[in-house]
Amino acid sequence: MLESFVLKEDDAVRVGHEDLRATTTAIFEKMGVPSDDAAVAADVLVMADLRGVDSHGVSNMLKSYITGYTNGTINANPDWKILRERPSTANIDADLALGIIIAPKAMDIAIAKAKQTGIGVVTMGKAGHVGMAAYHAMLALPHNMVGICLSGTPPQVLPTFGAEPRLGTNPIAVAVPTNTEDPFVLDIATSVVAVNKFRIAKRLGATIPGGMLADMEGTPIMEAGLVPDDFLSLPTGALRELGSHKGYGLACVVEILSTVLGGFGFAARNTRQSPGGFAHYVAAYDIDAFTDVPEFKETMDDFLQTLKATRPAPGHERVLVPGQLEAEATAERTAEGIPLHKEVVEWFRGTCAELSIACDF
Amino acid sequence: MLESFVLKEDDAVRVGHEDLRATTTAIFEKMGVPSDDAAVAADVLVMADLRGVDSHGVSNMLKSYITGYTNGTINANPDWKILRERPSTANIDADLALGIIIAPKAMDIAIAKAKQTGIGVVTMGKAGHVGMAAYHAMLALPHNMVGICLSGTPPQVLPTFGAEPRLGTNPIAVAVPTNTEDPFVLDIATSVVAVNKFRIAKRLGATIPGGMLADMEGTPIMEAGLVPDDFLSLPTGALRELGSHKGYGLACVVEILSTVLGGFGFAARNTRQSPGGFAHYVAAYDIDAFTDVPEFKETMDDFLQTLKATRPAPGHERVLVPGQLEAEATAERTAEGIPLHKEVVEWFRGTCAELSIACDF
Repeated sequence: MLESFVLKEDDAVRVGHEDLRATTTAIFEKMGVPSDDAAVAADVLVMADLRGVDSHGVSNMLKSYITGYTNGTINANPDWKILRERPSTANIDADLALGIIIAPKAMDIAIAKAKQTGIGVVTMGKAGHVGMAAYHAMLALPHNMVGICLSGTPPQVLPTFGAEPRLGTNPIAVAVPTNTEDPFVLDIATSVVAVNKFRIAKRLGATIPGGMLADMEGTPIMEAGLVPDDFLSLPTGALRELGSHKGYGLACVVEILSTVLGGFGFAARNTRQSPGGFAHYVAAYDIDAFTDVPEFKETMDDFLQTLKATRPAPGHERVLVPGQLEAEATAERTAEGIPLHKEVVEWFRGTCAELSIACDF
Repeated sequence: MLESFVLKEDDAVRVGHEDLRATTTAIFEKMGVPSDDAAVAADVLVMADLRGVDSHGVSNMLKSYITGYTNGTINANPDWKILRERPSTANIDADLALGIIIAPKAMDIAIAKAKQTGIGVVTMGKAGHVGMAAYHAMLALPHNMVGICLSGTPPQVLPTFGAEPRLGTNPIAVAVPTNTEDPFVLDIATSVVAVNKFRIAKRLGATIPGGMLADMEGTPIMEAGLVPDDFLSLPTGALRELGSHKGYGLACVVEILSTVLGGFGFAARNTRQSPGGFAHYVAAYDIDAFTDVPEFKETMDDFLQTLKATRPAPGHERVLVPGQLEAEATAERTAEGIPLHKEVVEWFRGTCAELSIACDF
C-alpha cells in the first residue's frame, strides 16, 4: 500500500539526521520555544523521518507548527498545569503547548508514577498536535516499561454507516521492550490510513488502492485511483463486513480515554477546547510490577521471532512484526541520510533565510 | 453481516432469562463449583444471551465448560493466588479457574486499587475462557469507572501475510458510564469475526460475505459462500490494503498485556500454561481521578447522541454506537425470553437428566 507513496529517488535530497535536527531545533527556537523544548520537538520530527514515517516528519508537519506559533493557536511558552492528580494518574491543562513537546513531559510523569505504583496514566488537553505517537510510547522503553500513547484529534473520519465526519484519526501507539530484537512498536491510526499519508500521495500524484476513502456522500470508493480533491475518511476495516465498526469503536475509545476523560469535551463539538485542539493520553506499565523483567524481554524476543518465522502466504516474501520496517528504515536513513523532496529542502532554505538562521543543508 | 447468522424463529424456543440462569447455575454447581461462583458463571453466560451475543452464550460455551470440568482442564475449586502486587497492579495465577469466574474477582481487585490510586490493572494466567469480555469491563460501570477487559486466547488467527495461525482472536472490551444514554460498551475480536460466530453460521448453514476467512494456504477468500470445513482466520482489516496489520498489531498488544506481561509465555508456544490455557487483563479507571463524574457522564451522553444523530450514508438507516444493539437486544429478550435453538433446549434437558437436576424449561 505505502509503496506507491514512496518518494522517487530523483526528486530526493539526502540530508543527515543531525543537520536536520539542528536546523529544525533552530526554527523552533526562533518561534520562541525554549531550547530544551525546541530540541525535543525537533527530535520527535526527525525520529519520524528516520523511522520512515514521512507523514509525521518535517515535510508534512513543521510548516503547520510554524503557522500555529505565528497565529497563536500554539503557545511557545505555555503555563501548563496539573488539574487533578492521584498516585497513578494526572490530568494536565496544556495551555496550548504543542503536543510533541507536552506529551514527553506527561510521559515523564507517567513513568515516575509507574515506578511507585506499577502504572502511570496521564491525560492532557488544550494541546497541539502530538506528532508521531510512537515517539512518546517509546520513552518508556529504557525504563523497562510498556509505553502507550493515544491522541484524540479533530473530526475527519466517518462513523460506520455515517455520511458526516465525527471522529479523528485517533491513533494508538504501543511500545514494548525486548532483549535482542528491535522493540515492538505499533503505531496505527484507527482510520484506514492517516490523513497525512493521503496528503503525501496527492503531492506525489500516486494511485491509491480501493477501500481507503469514501466519497462526499459517505459511500466507500472501492476502485483504485488518484486521491480525489474532496473525500471523507473511513474507519479501519473500511466496510462493516470487514470490521469497520471495530475501527470506529476504537476511535471512540481513544477519544474517550484522552479528550472526554480529561474533561475536554469531545472533538465533534469543540466546546471545551479551542478549535483544532487536541487531547492526548500516555501510559507507562512497569513490567517488574507484573513479572521478572529479563524473563519478559526474552519472551518478547521469542514471541517476535516466532511471528517473523511464520510461513508466508502465496505472493508474500515475509511476515513482519510491528516496528520492524521502522527499525530497518532507521538503520538505512541514519547511514544514508533522510530523503527529503527537493521542494522541501527549498522550503527549509527559504524559511531559514526569512528567519535569519543558518540552514545546515 | 451478522443478520445471516440469526436463528430462524421456527427453530427457536424462547426461554426466560431467570429460568436459564437458574438451570445454568445448577449445572455449574453439579460440576463442583461453589454456589457463589456458579451464580457468577451463569450470569456471564446468560448476560451474553440477553445482549444478543449468542456466540458467547449458553449454546456455544456451556458444553465446552462442562467438558473442561469433566476432563480436569478447568478447576472447580482453584487455589488461585496473587503472584505479585503493587498499589495499582496485581498478577494472578488462576490455578485453572474458568475465566468467567476469575475475571470478575480480578476486576474487584482492580476497582479497589483504582479507588485508591486512580487506576487498577490486574493480569491473570493459567485460566480458562473469559466468556463475553464486556461482562467484566461492565463491572466497573456502577463504580463510576471505565472498565477494560482483554483476553489472550489460543492461536487461530493469521498474522498479516502469514499462512500459519499465530495469534488468538484476542478480544478488546471497553465499558464507559453515561448518564441517560445506554453505557458505551465496545467488545470486539481483533480477528475479522470471533471464531464462535463461524461455528454458529456453520450450524445454521448460513452464507458469509467475502473477506472474512482465508483458505488453508493463508490467502483471503474474497467471495461470499458457506463456511468451509477448513479455514484460517484473518485479523481485522482482512487485507493489508484495508488495514489488516492493525488488527494483527492489536492482537499482539492484547497478547502482550495479558499473557506476556503476566509471565505466562505466549500463546503460539505454550510453555508456561497448560495447552488451551488463557490469560486475561482487566483494568478500571476511576473517572474522578481525572475529572468531575457528573460532567463526564453528560459529555458521554452528548458524544453518543451526536454520533447517533450523524446523517446516514446512502443505503443505511441509522448510525449505531457501541453497545446500542446489545442494549436493544437486552430489552427485547428480557421481555420476550432468550431464543434458543430447539436442539440446544433438547441438550439442556438431556444434560439435566444425566446430572439428576431439574431443568426449569
